[in-house]
Amino acid sequence: MKKNKIWIDEICNNSRYGLAGNIIAKCNSKYQEIIILETEEYGKALMLDGCWMTTDQGEKYYHECLVHPALSSLKNSSKILIIGGGDGGTVRECLKYKKVNYLDLVEIDEEVINLSKKYLTNIGGKSWSDKRLHINIEDGFQWVKKTEDNYYDAIIIDSSDPSDFANNLFSPKFYTECKRVLKKHGILATQSESPESFKKIHLKIYFSLKNTFKNIATMYSFVPFYPSGIWSWTFASDTDDYFLKQKCEEIKSIEKNCEIWNSKFQEGAFKMMPSKIIREISILKK
Amino acid sequence: MKKNKIWIDEICNNSRYGLAGNIIAKCNSKYQEIIILETEEYGKALMLDGCWMTTDQGEKYYHECLVHPALSSLKNSSKILIIGGGDGGTVRECLKYKKVNYLDLVEIDEEVINLSKKYLTNIGGKSWSDKRLHINIEDGFQWVKKTEDNYYDAIIIDSSDPSDFANNLFSPKFYTECKRVLKKHGILATQSESPESFKKIHLKIYFSLKNTFKNIATMYSFVPFYPSGIWSWTFASDTDDYFLKQKCEEIKSIEKNCEIWNSKFQEGAFKMMPSKIIREISILKK
Repeated sequence: MKKNKIWIDEICNNSRYGLAGNIIAKCNSKYQEIIILETEEYGKALMLDGCWMTTDQGEKYYHECLVHPALSSLKNSSKILIIGGGDGGTVRECLKYKKVNYLDLVEIDEEVINLSKKYLTNIGGKSWSDKRLHINIEDGFQWVKKTEDNYYDAIIIDSSDPSDFANNLFSPKFYTECKRVLKKHGILATQSESPESFKKIHLKIYFSLKNTFKNIATMYSFVPFYPSGIWSWTFASDTDDYFLKQKCEEIKSIEKNCEIWNSKFQEGAFKMMPSKIIREISILKK
Repeated sequence: MKKNKIWIDEICNNSRYGLAGNIIAKCNSKYQEIIILETEEYGKALMLDGCWMTTDQGEKYYHECLVHPALSSLKNSSKILIIGGGDGGTVRECLKYKKVNYLDLVEIDEEVINLSKKYLTNIGGKSWSDKRLHINIEDGFQWVKKTEDNYYDAIIIDSSDPSDFANNLFSPKFYTECKRVLKKHGILATQSESPESFKKIHLKIYFSLKNTFKNIATMYSFVPFYPSGIWSWTFASDTDDYFLKQKCEEIKSIEKNCEIWNSKFQEGAFKMMPSKIIREISILKK
């Protein structure tokens, strides 16, 4: 690493989280500013519009928790849709399952994919050339809208925080469209923001999904490079809450290939709603 | 708040976590540099030797997880020892229990207590004048060494990270002394650092306690202002692992008075050991 390291910070609510390193790519795409920083301790790090998205060293905390609760509970061969996720981490986790036979990645910003393929080689790796993967550069909302009914077994929303072009992905209307294109036993998985740093949007996602699907559950776990470090993922289904139980035969081999996630960890994470959030939800329900 | 806000950062492994605010106290005690920052979003924040110790807004994530797993499982009236904890948060959580009838706080640095009483009034609050509390300005290791056998029902180690004057509090010798002064059904509770940012010391605490006590268990949860945001607390006892179950009658009223912790949250947190830590422990065991 070169000696002229600089600090790059994400600033959020008058707190900041910074990494020291060298910028190896910086550009403005049609949608956002993209920075890739090379660091000693955390490997390569991706920042979009001033927000850390991922780091080589910590990304598994995020991607494993987004994918495995959903996919490990699907019994049969599966057709999956990922919205966002241009860094390739969610794709990689999905393709660990042999039963996944078709995977649509719908990312609005081609530049994120191009730069991730070039620089974040530890994240997507060989997944990019997997024949099951189909890359579509398109708006996620529009993609779902034009998809036929009962099409996917799982939809995974791996979006950045709400913004001009990502706002749609947090709307009740979008979730209703997702429900329509999911098969009967299909599962929706979405990152659902921090209950601490983004409480309002966290609760908005919770209630929008609760009003759309028969069963939802939120898990809380760690993402060291996101604001507050506390993150959440919400899972929804129109059948019983079977997405809380691992059903698939591949589960042992998946566990072996994970750095953070395991069945017990998941069971714990679904119980870790802080008391103050439990109270806010029970007040808002009335 | 005044307009001339400045950033104060804790730097750890080439990452930094900073808060913007105004310094309202700064001094060098006999042991360390103490800074108190006033912030808009996080209230007052305490920094010792460059490390964030506590913030008004986030401290409950830490203090509730340190105290309640231990104290909620104690059945009878109790004599408690806190080592460290000069900000008053651990004292406050302990004194929520009516059954606690005697509480020794042993803090090496009187200045931390003085400044906390003066500025961090939201943390210790009325606890400082509770008649059950006995403040002792002394080295924690020496205090335990001179204590008679079978004296305390619980020992709570609320120390800062290892340093010249805190190193002793992480040694097997210290844990052996703690075991001696604990009653038969006594419990030791200690913050046990981050499995992500301080993995070595985290594992050292784990194994030192495992080699000293019959039963230990580690819980993982969130502390937004500590490095990586992932923190751990380890509990040890020489009887069965009854500290994993709440037994005390006051539990419902304690839960009502907590912001983060509840029985279900605790149950989850004890399951959230990341796979990579499970693997390191199983390799080191051999």
